[in-house]
Amino acid sequence: MIKQLTIVGLGLIGGSLARALKQKDYCERIIGCGRDEAQLRWAQEQGLIDAYDTDPAQACRGSDVIVLAVPLGAMVACMRAIQPALAEHAVITDVGSAKASVVAAAQEVFGQVPLRFVPGHPIAGTENSGVQASFAELYQNRRVILTPLDHTDVDAVSVARDMWQVTGATVDEMSVSHHDQVLAATSHLPHVLAYGLVDTLANMDSHTEIFRFAAGGFRDFTRIASSDPVVWRDISLANREAILDVLASYRQDLDVLTSYIENGDGEALQALYERAKAARDKCIKQLES
Amino acid sequence: MIKQLTIVGLGLIGGSLARALKQKDYCERIIGCGRDEAQLRWAQEQGLIDAYDTDPAQACRGSDVIVLAVPLGAMVACMRAIQPALAEHAVITDVGSAKASVVAAAQEVFGQVPLRFVPGHPIAGTENSGVQASFAELYQNRRVILTPLDHTDVDAVSVARDMWQVTGATVDEMSVSHHDQVLAATSHLPHVLAYGLVDTLANMDSHTEIFRFAAGGFRDFTRIASSDPVVWRDISLANREAILDVLASYRQDLDVLTSYIENGDGEALQALYERAKAARDKCIKQLES
Repeated sequence: MIKQLTIVGLGLIGGSLARALKQKDYCERIIGCGRDEAQLRWAQEQGLIDAYDTDPAQACRGSDVIVLAVPLGAMVACMRAIQPALAEHAVITDVGSAKASVVAAAQEVFGQVPLRFVPGHPIAGTENSGVQASFAELYQNRRVILTPLDHTDVDAVSVARDMWQVTGATVDEMSVSHHDQVLAATSHLPHVLAYGLVDTLANMDSHTEIFRFAAGGFRDFTRIASSDPVVWRDISLANREAILDVLASYRQDLDVLTSYIENGDGEALQALYERAKAARDKCIKQLES
Repeated sequence: MIKQLTIVGLGLIGGSLARALKQKDYCERIIGCGRDEAQLRWAQEQGLIDAYDTDPAQACRGSDVIVLAVPLGAMVACMRAIQPALAEHAVITDVGSAKASVVAAAQEVFGQVPLRFVPGHPIAGTENSGVQASFAELYQNRRVILTPLDHTDVDAVSVARDMWQVTGATVDEMSVSHHDQVLAATSHLPHVLAYGLVDTLANMDSHTEIFRFAAGGFRDFTRIASSDPVVWRDISLANREAILDVLASYRQDLDVLTSYIENGDGEALQALYERAKAARDKCIKQLES
């Protein structure tokens, strides 16, 4: 149980967390914070939150747990804003998709990462954004990764872990750098590639009307290119090194794949496609079990 | 109405066509042809087809319409096999994803593309393959592209058009080269990129277990990498020129995108992501209307 929880940044991720915790009656009081008062009022009317404040410091005053669910680029400003209002026992966690940058932000603002600050990341989302797109089931059977530092308070980690488990998620722990490497590969790179592909095609589209003939495969492949551009700009920059690493591997592999097509090497192409299909089918089976 | 229809290659595409036409009672008799007799027997038991033959010539004898639904790499052999058995009035069409290669195959086998041969391509499919994955609704609200040549018989085009309309599809006509360019962009390139990405990640996976932390975005982005490797090997080779063209554009654009990330150019990144999101959202709205 949490007495008072504040969620700073009440969009798809923050709003879905509020809904899930409300549904399980896990918080006595949930306070929402955001820049758009109309959205916050709507969230309160819908019963997602009990109260709201557009001022982060006011919203965090007296809270036992604070979840930072703002875009990565807003982390420093957000931490600065709440710093004066933090209760000593407050556990702070966040939902940022790149952890090294959040840790760096906390170091910058607090001098060192607070003992009760637990960097976290729920591996969940949709291509939609905003609190209106939120739903209580978003975290069910999903993974949440916590990346505590060596000096992070173990009780604070437990508080964050318990909260996420209540939403139906499985909680893992790993190092900041491992998290950033893994997410660069399975999430950040696909987003970059999908945005890039749609942009390439859009530039061709004027004279070919190609989008008229797109099918289901295209729709699925590019779904993530409908994600929030600001969020993904921030992630692309915040996890720059890891993304560039895996992007370099991918571009190298794409050179090889391209050469197979150029040379008409059907055997090599088939072997690659079979390997990829087997890996993907295995991955999906694993995710579903 | 079609008196006797033969579908050579009774997999997802051919099987779904059989189901859709059966449902509308559009053929007096549907004959299935394939290499796996057990699959054909199953299809007959399920009522998808009225009869079957593993010999293409036998299966096509006396048929009024013949649909070639074999992988592109099997087209020449398939045409050679059925050639002696074709009735003079028979309309032949196919479902190949790259049209220039099918036209070339027909030229090779028949000397010139037969007047009653109508190259075609239903823009539909799933990542599953085989007749067991077929379903009657596959073509509903999908597009089918016919690419008749200058000398193609207009009556034969009508026969193909009418057949596809019965399945619930919208039928368009365009040139062979335009088709191949459009499909390279919206379908073939995404498949190549998805196979490539999964293979890159699979090579990293052994030491990082990245697939354990894949989320919904990854699942959608890579769905097409679970497609049939032989079919996609054939498409990659059959539409090589157009795929290499669009792949070159994409790689150029990816260089630019990579430089934005390297240089930390958030403004340019955001503009690109916004452009892509707008294009994709518009495309999906168009597809849904």
